[in-house]
Amino acid sequence: MGIDPGLEHTGYGVLQGGGSRPRVLEMGVLATDRRGELGGRLRHLHQDVELLLREVRPALVVLEDLFAHPRFPRTAIVLGHARGVICLAVAASGARMVTLAPSVVKRAVTGSGRATKAQVQEAVCALLGLRRLPQPHAADALALAYAGLARLRAVSR
Amino acid sequence: MGIDPGLEHTGYGVLQGGGSRPRVLEMGVLATDRRGELGGRLRHLHQDVELLLREVRPALVVLEDLFAHPRFPRTAIVLGHARGVICLAVAASGARMVTLAPSVVKRAVTGSGRATKAQVQEAVCALLGLRRLPQPHAADALALAYAGLARLRAVSR
Repeated sequence: MGIDPGLEHTGYGVLQGGGSRPRVLEMGVLATDRRGELGGRLRHLHQDVELLLREVRPALVVLEDLFAHPRFPRTAIVLGHARGVICLAVAASGARMVTLAPSVVKRAVTGSGRATKAQVQEAVCALLGLRRLPQPHAADALALAYAGLARLRAVSR
Repeated sequence: MGIDPGLEHTGYGVLQGGGSRPRVLEMGVLATDRRGELGGRLRHLHQDVELLLREVRPALVVLEDLFAHPRFPRTAIVLGHARGVICLAVAASGARMVTLAPSVVKRAVTGSGRATKAQVQEAVCALLGLRRLPQPHAADALALAYAGLARLRAVSR
């Protein structure tokens, strides 16, 4: 399961490995109300992620590296709040969590560590045989899950 | 109750108003193990704050403004994780949460919005009649609680 955290939009994507091509079990975007208060929004996000983890019971949860976000302090602190409650839910679920650098994720799905967002979206769509381009946050989450699965396979070889 | 969030050290201070001088009910610093994994540390911090909120049942929780931290993105994102799980615990407890700008807090305890950390520590000690200087994180939390109490009084007048 890959998760692309954000206070407003959190993407998720769940893959099942094993066959020749990973199968998409779940994908989507969790949203919180922009007009809501921070505490309530975090509570909402935390509950949604908890529910998702309970339903999916992933063996592995993949996030981007903590410091992968080359943004402004203001953006970083808001993102940190969302990522914090997600990490909390993952830790409480008992799932294993790994973090990957964005370049590793991009390389896993496109072959290039410098691919654009659009290229990642296209590559995820092709690799997983999706009929439609996934939403950007969901595509990023699927790319994380895909790269995590590739990492697991490399380790178990 | 004032809270000064941090992944490594979170200060807290609880004041009871009503008399001529606010009374210190609780103060201290919650710490997480530096060598621990992020998820486990956040879980630990979240549990400690939840427990504290259950014991203290504060009417008001005071934090510094979200964007009060003029730091680097790396520091901001780590701080954001800690602040996020604290906001989550406060929201779930049903306590009212307010945020104040650092300059407002400093002015409330020292008379100057540009006071240093050491001046805040000294002022808190004197204002609350403490026998010893509180630890810096606890002093900051007490200053937040003090400024929050002053704000409440101004509103109820």
